[in-house]
Amino acid sequence: MRNYNLAIVGLGGMGNWHRELINEGGWFGGKKFEGKSFENLSVLGSYDIDQSRQKFATEHGIKAYASLEALLGDPAVDIVLTSVPNDLHKPMVLKALAAGKHVVCEKPVALNSGELREMIDASKKAGKVFTVHQNRRWDEDYLTAKKIYDEKILGDVFRIESRVHGSRGIPGDWRGLPEHGGGMLLDWGVHILDQALQMIPGKVKKVHATFTYVTNELVDDGFYAELTFENGLVYLAEVGTSNFVNLPRWYILGRDGTALMENFKPTGKIVRVTDWSKNDAVPIRTAAGLTKTMAPRTDETIKEEALPAVKSDIRDFYRNFLKTIEGKENLAVSLDSVLRNMLLMEAILKSAKTGEVVAFE
Amino acid sequence: MRNYNLAIVGLGGMGNWHRELINEGGWFGGKKFEGKSFENLSVLGSYDIDQSRQKFATEHGIKAYASLEALLGDPAVDIVLTSVPNDLHKPMVLKALAAGKHVVCEKPVALNSGELREMIDASKKAGKVFTVHQNRRWDEDYLTAKKIYDEKILGDVFRIESRVHGSRGIPGDWRGLPEHGGGMLLDWGVHILDQALQMIPGKVKKVHATFTYVTNELVDDGFYAELTFENGLVYLAEVGTSNFVNLPRWYILGRDGTALMENFKPTGKIVRVTDWSKNDAVPIRTAAGLTKTMAPRTDETIKEEALPAVKSDIRDFYRNFLKTIEGKENLAVSLDSVLRNMLLMEAILKSAKTGEVVAFE
Repeated sequence: MRNYNLAIVGLGGMGNWHRELINEGGWFGGKKFEGKSFENLSVLGSYDIDQSRQKFATEHGIKAYASLEALLGDPAVDIVLTSVPNDLHKPMVLKALAAGKHVVCEKPVALNSGELREMIDASKKAGKVFTVHQNRRWDEDYLTAKKIYDEKILGDVFRIESRVHGSRGIPGDWRGLPEHGGGMLLDWGVHILDQALQMIPGKVKKVHATFTYVTNELVDDGFYAELTFENGLVYLAEVGTSNFVNLPRWYILGRDGTALMENFKPTGKIVRVTDWSKNDAVPIRTAAGLTKTMAPRTDETIKEEALPAVKSDIRDFYRNFLKTIEGKENLAVSLDSVLRNMLLMEAILKSAKTGEVVAFE
Repeated sequence: MRNYNLAIVGLGGMGNWHRELINEGGWFGGKKFEGKSFENLSVLGSYDIDQSRQKFATEHGIKAYASLEALLGDPAVDIVLTSVPNDLHKPMVLKALAAGKHVVCEKPVALNSGELREMIDASKKAGKVFTVHQNRRWDEDYLTAKKIYDEKILGDVFRIESRVHGSRGIPGDWRGLPEHGGGMLLDWGVHILDQALQMIPGKVKKVHATFTYVTNELVDDGFYAELTFENGLVYLAEVGTSNFVNLPRWYILGRDGTALMENFKPTGKIVRVTDWSKNDAVPIRTAAGLTKTMAPRTDETIKEEALPAVKSDIRDFYRNFLKTIEGKENLAVSLDSVLRNMLLMEAILKSAKTGEVVAFE
């Protein structure tokens, strides 16, 4: 494989995340990587409208291009990473493709499906590889949930609840402004909805969603989106930014058991039925009063187990990208999957705005 | 106050609960009551179609009437408690009212609002006091939640999640049969929806609900009902019977904090903002990757507190009933409130059946 050079447009938090991952190593996805991550990929330089970030670039051993044009005009640059506010993704990606670069775009790739279709068309016309950094497909909590689903560890799963809770509202930057593509649906929804589509096979038949506006009037600072898949599974994707006590990151209900993961580190437990023959409920007196239905089970019929172990390596994102450039693999984050997720977010937006259930696929 | 005698139609689990409360004492709502609960109320006898329960009655010092007619015809009986399968509530209540008795009916009072209207009309015609044993209005977990809401301990509350989780499916008796009024909406929904209507003032504008049929095809063995109140508050009422790990009984989100109660015993915590001026989020590296929005708060801005204490006495239900008979109080569980709850359950049923959002009040 030949060597590839990457340049970063927008050296903010996420732009610098890519620089560190590729050039320096560090902690990523709970794992420490030492030094350069890839033999054949380097960050050559960056461009940012913020002078302090230009200085930061040179201080960290990469070139600070004097302008976007200079960056795009450098024949040594093979790949452009765009990590700018969301409304600038489309123009930046189109320019980079027109300049003959392969492109990795930060999420959310665009503000709507119309923009994304333009970007996909441009990549086809340019004959360049274009993908989106849906990095949370490599999160171990998600992969643990997916393994539980795929391997029917709880029997057939009938409901999945995927929650991301924080208590700081929306950061006080462009993320609070609708014209820049702010709001939690685009910011975090794009991850956890993408995970839902990756995990569950088949169509999403309908969507019901509500938005919250607790700390912010202009964009949603949280949402609840209930997806009903054609196999009957209901998938709740929920983001909250006024949650001072968090509910678990994952709650998975199968016919034979339940899995709970507390947070992004895949710690939690599975409780499964070991003996379906003993299911007779004896009414018990709880603080709740007499209840037969809600009487807890005993060790006779259920067993607590650890979550299954999964391994993941976020560097596989770039490994796959380079191999796709060389025609040896297909994109791990396909443009079809990104478009589908964008269409899903539009259905969710429509449901939240109208208050109605929206048919999807 | 004169002395009142009560007779029980249907001496099953709940029928006997009333017998014990009134005649013997025991543990109720997490509290121990010694001996007779009321100076002026006694259980005189009962009737049950099950011979073993007739025997149980005499063994426990109350009269086992030979027939329903014998019970209703006994002039010593002032009050009839009906604790029979749900489909029999209406005929039993109508007979008891026609016999000139005051009536306490177990929940759910009827299978639908049409039945309930007939029962209400009959009580007016008979001039007798008729109410429903919505005992969970006296649950301390509910009253704690209500206090948090009423006193704005979390600031303005924008979302309440009220969950009841078990893992035994539906008991293998009439509760699994639609013709007897089975299903979790009628069995447990009737409690937690009643609590929602009691807690939040104002109209419920719309309802969205889904049912589960995990262990049972004929009736819902769980449901999710999202109520949107006219003040904007969203109230999720959820019952699950295939939940091997429970989510907390209560999760309450206010602008200034969050409350969580683990179970029916009001144990849990409140986390509140103490300093709104320090809200600047610094991006942090978590196992989740870089996140600014979901960075946890520190002790500088938030404080953990105990839940507020509430006191409750389930015996107040009967104290109020007797005083209502004597014209000194109004019913704690008014027939209007019971009818409203039944109409709400009908809207929920419609939403679950059609898959649509249903306008309510």
